[in-house]
Parts: sequence; C-alpha cells; structure tokens
Amino acid sequence: MSNALTVRNPEGLPYTEYEREFEAPAAAVFRAHTDPELYLQWIGPHGLTTRIEEHDYRAGGSFRFIQHGNDGVEYAFRGTVHNVREGEFILNTFEYEGWPDVVTLEYTSFEDLPGGRSRLTGRSVFPDLESRQRYLEEGMERGMTEGYDRLDTLLAQAS
Amino acid sequence: MSNALTVRNPEGLPYTEYEREFEAPAAAVFRAHTDPELYLQWIGPHGLTTRIEEHDYRAGGSFRFIQHGNDGVEYAFRGTVHNVREGEFILNTFEYEGWPDVVTLEYTSFEDLPGGRSRLTGRSVFPDLESRQRYLEEGMERGMTEGYDRLDTLLAQAS
Repeated sequence: MSNALTVRNPEGLPYTEYEREFEAPAAAVFRAHTDPELYLQWIGPHGLTTRIEEHDYRAGGSFRFIQHGNDGVEYAFRGTVHNVREGEFILNTFEYEGWPDVVTLEYTSFEDLPGGRSRLTGRSVFPDLESRQRYLEEGMERGMTEGYDRLDTLLAQAS
Repeated sequence: MSNALTVRNPEGLPYTEYEREFEAPAAAVFRAHTDPELYLQWIGPHGLTTRIEEHDYRAGGSFRFIQHGNDGVEYAFRGTVHNVREGEFILNTFEYEGWPDVVTLEYTSFEDLPGGRSRLTGRSVFPDLESRQRYLEEGMERGMTEGYDRLDTLLAQAS
C-alpha cells in the first residue's frame, strides 16, 4: 500500500542515506516538516505522543520536541536549523538529548515527480561510525518507516 | 616559539581532528572564541581583515563573519551554534558561503593544563570525503596555524 523507505548505510562511512516517495507534491511534504501542528502528527515511531517546545525552521532557527509512550518515559530531541529553501531543502543538526553531544547533520531534499507525486531524499552525517551503529540498533529505520507511513495518512487527509 | 598545531585526517573517514596547546587558561582561549571583539583579531589566515555580522555563541545562536584581503574579494562564513558549555565546549555548524550546503559540524573542547596552560581539541565532521579534500587543498591547515599563532599573541597581550 504505502511507498517503501529505502535506506543505505555505506560500509565504513558514517552516513545514512535514504529515499521515500509520497503521493503528494514536494511543497506539501516540506510543509509537513516545517509546520509544527503537522509535524507532531507524524514524526517518530508508533505508540509515542509528541509535544513541541520550539519549531523554528528558518536559517538560524531551533527546534525541540519531546515524545513519550504509555509508560510516561520522555525522550527529548533538539537541533538548530542551518539552512532552509522553501519547498526544497532543509539542513539541520539533530540530537537525542539522552545521548548528549552525539549530533548528526541532516540534509533533507524535496523534489516534485510527475502526477502530483514527490520524492524526499535524506542524508544523515554521524560524528562517527559507532554513533550510527547505536542509532541503527535503537530502531532508527523502524521509527522512520512508521513516521513516514503516518505522514502518508496525514497527506491523504489534507488533499 | 609557538606551540604546534597537530592535525590528523584519518584515511577514508571524513573527519579532521586537531590539537593545539596555549600558554593561557582554557577560560581565556574559550573567551577568544565567543567574544566577537577578540575573535575578529585572530581568526583565519594572515593578510585578511575580518568583520563580524553576528556572533551569538549560545545554544541556538548563529554567527556570520566576512573576510577580505587587499584585493577586496570577500569570503563569508556562517553557522549555527548547537551547544555551548562555558569555558569547556562549543559545537557548531560551519559553512563557507562560496561552497553552499558543504557544511561541517565543529566540535571544540577546552581543557586546563598545569601551569596556567591549556589544550584545545577540535573535530570537524565533513559531509563527505571530497569536501574534506577540497578544504585541505584550499589551505585549511595553514589558515588554522596562522590564526592560532595570532591567538597566541592576543592571549599574551591580554594576560
């Protein structure tokens, strides 16, 4: 039913590269990242509730959001926004506060495809191979897959 | 006369790691980074004049500075400040605007040594190996060496 998330973790290099198509234009997928009211509805794995403390997606802006499950345990994430090009590109830092100073650089590009569809292309640059391994073992790919599936639903409702 | 800059560029991994000792306490070396009036006196290679447009070294802050030589050609640099611990640690993004979207993550640590001396430890994470190569070929190490030598002079004047 949903489009597949393709994830590549090149051997010996501290990157994660991923791709995902959406049944919605690039502008709508971009907006689901920069609009806090949309973002909190899809980000992260199933079963967690998100609240947003800050969500300023302009060059020089910052964000912080907190997720919790039924057990009440909270997970906080924060970063700075290095650059944004409306509808096309976001470049931000990203940190899970439980792993302080393990910070990634996140490149996200949005491009239109024929038929009102679009493609998201992402690149996470980790500070070392061990940090990437740790994120992978903690279910990063599952969290992304489940989040993007929820984003599909959100985009279908909005259109 | 001056302390040596040690630079490591690990084979096949997109990092530059460096170390430099100073004849001044960590707090003074840290302040020379976060205080714009001090920073513009030492940053970059010989022969360039620096002017600072923004220099907000707090978590979530931003910076931008512009350098020019006798030929009047300008080089602009900007970034966001992901995290700061007073006197100890700075983590920021860094971009030469002439190479847009080639952004590094810069980890800088400051620690005191006996005798009022200190050590700066840096780690630049590049988005890919090609970007590191390009920075190296453009004289990154020379610029750092000359900048830190000027910082020595500045710290000696201040003490």
